[in-house]
Amino acid sequence: MKMGGATVLMDHGSGGEASSALIKELFVTRLSNNALDGMDDCAVLPFGGSSLAFSTDSFVVDPIFFPGGDIGSLAVHGTVNDIAMRGGIPLFLSLSLILEEGFPIADLDRVAESISMAAREAGIQIVTGDTKVVPRGKGDKVFINTSGIGLVPPGLDIRASGARAGDSVIVSGTMADHGVAILMARSGMDHEGIFLSDSAPLHRHVEKLLARGEAVHVLRDPTRGGLATALNEIAAASQVDIEVWEERIPVRPHVARACELLGMDPLYLANEGKLVAVVAPEMEEKALSLLRSMPGSGEAQCVGRV
Amino acid sequence: MKMGGATVLMDHGSGGEASSALIKELFVTRLSNNALDGMDDCAVLPFGGSSLAFSTDSFVVDPIFFPGGDIGSLAVHGTVNDIAMRGGIPLFLSLSLILEEGFPIADLDRVAESISMAAREAGIQIVTGDTKVVPRGKGDKVFINTSGIGLVPPGLDIRASGARAGDSVIVSGTMADHGVAILMARSGMDHEGIFLSDSAPLHRHVEKLLARGEAVHVLRDPTRGGLATALNEIAAASQVDIEVWEERIPVRPHVARACELLGMDPLYLANEGKLVAVVAPEMEEKALSLLRSMPGSGEAQCVGRV
Repeated sequence: MKMGGATVLMDHGSGGEASSALIKELFVTRLSNNALDGMDDCAVLPFGGSSLAFSTDSFVVDPIFFPGGDIGSLAVHGTVNDIAMRGGIPLFLSLSLILEEGFPIADLDRVAESISMAAREAGIQIVTGDTKVVPRGKGDKVFINTSGIGLVPPGLDIRASGARAGDSVIVSGTMADHGVAILMARSGMDHEGIFLSDSAPLHRHVEKLLARGEAVHVLRDPTRGGLATALNEIAAASQVDIEVWEERIPVRPHVARACELLGMDPLYLANEGKLVAVVAPEMEEKALSLLRSMPGSGEAQCVGRV
Repeated sequence: MKMGGATVLMDHGSGGEASSALIKELFVTRLSNNALDGMDDCAVLPFGGSSLAFSTDSFVVDPIFFPGGDIGSLAVHGTVNDIAMRGGIPLFLSLSLILEEGFPIADLDRVAESISMAAREAGIQIVTGDTKVVPRGKGDKVFINTSGIGLVPPGLDIRASGARAGDSVIVSGTMADHGVAILMARSGMDHEGIFLSDSAPLHRHVEKLLARGEAVHVLRDPTRGGLATALNEIAAASQVDIEVWEERIPVRPHVARACELLGMDPLYLANEGKLVAVVAPEMEEKALSLLRSMPGSGEAQCVGRV
């Protein structure tokens, strides 16, 4: 990495290759340890005889209120889902706010209510927190960090490097809903409010999938960078190739049209309530029917093969 | 709290009464649970048969580099210390960065190196992370969140509400060093670099204190809001009065002079490497001599009585 006059670019936060290279070079090599080196979105650690899932995420979404959710519910779902993707049962969240001076208390109240509802719905406790205020123009309304702790059942080892040749690649529903909802909300073009974020907790979906045994090899929530980035990371971590059948990837028709209009590829846009599961081929049908019976994943599809 | 046109003020992030009222009203009442209601800086939770300390803190210090430390080492020390103040042995940290577009990579590299050194020195592992980038003018160089997990030895219950009548109040060293270092760095008046932050990890001090038994009732790191706010919180949580002998509170002479110049009370300024211990009176002498034998706490003093 060139250091001379180089500066941080928006692309370094994309969740794609630029972010990954920056973080690897500056942080992972220096801080190297077993948990970090996997570059999963969640660490699994030994703790007092049990196995603990630990994840962190900062949320800087703009606009903070959007159709289908807001920065508060998103901050709860995002960390709950990162824990779930390692097979962890989410138990506790921390909540840290960076508020910009001048942010309306009424908006903060709305965000707090949304956090509270999302936490209750997900069945997790927010147990510790922190608040900072930065001067006007040094922040952007509100940034939220949530970090979370989950309990990983004994014997479970779900990680990005678990994909094996022949495995089926399943997505739990339509792609790009969150990404398009944000872009449309930002553009002010969605006058009818038809573009809804899919922001939702996924740990109950995971619980159902895992109840069927050991055949789930990788779980990933395709957030920043979308499905394409998630599959690239799984392929790299597992040292395999993944064949993707694009025509089978579910995308809502109006989302597909919006993507054309915006010149974006839906496979690179964020989802906040969908998962990718890499499962043994004999589990494919069972996994699809389980997912299709659950809220938000009625359109689950097998979209590729390892 | 009035909601109409009210907005977030800088004072809401002071760590004092305004922050506490805002957080209580909007968050604690809604999210209410045993861990959160204590409003300690760190939750202690049951996890897989053990006792787990969990804490979070976002760091927005300006300037990010200052005499005696930087935002990176501060972010490690801050969360390590919050865990230590509940008697926890710090084990794992998460690290989440919010970078402003245009932030020099060379500065980020310097922060990363400082984080890495501080983590190594404190003997903790950074196991998971996240990076976001916000557009220029929507952030301020770099904000860092660290969340941390510690193991609380069986039987230990150290919390703000533990102070009992007759207890001795000990501070581990000189007050206001960090707060004055930041103010002087911001003002550009410290040409000789004599105002050094005291930023340092305290878990080894705590370990030594606790090895002497059950007589340690409260531990607190007097960060934002300083010693005065920490003692107020302890008094309120424990429903006691605390008599403070101001003349015995150690303050470096040049720090005291700077405070006079700035019109600030050193007892309200932040410390980042000092602790307050409320101990049984019979432990006072032992605690003082233990602290005085350790780095950064040579000037430990008994400064009051519950």
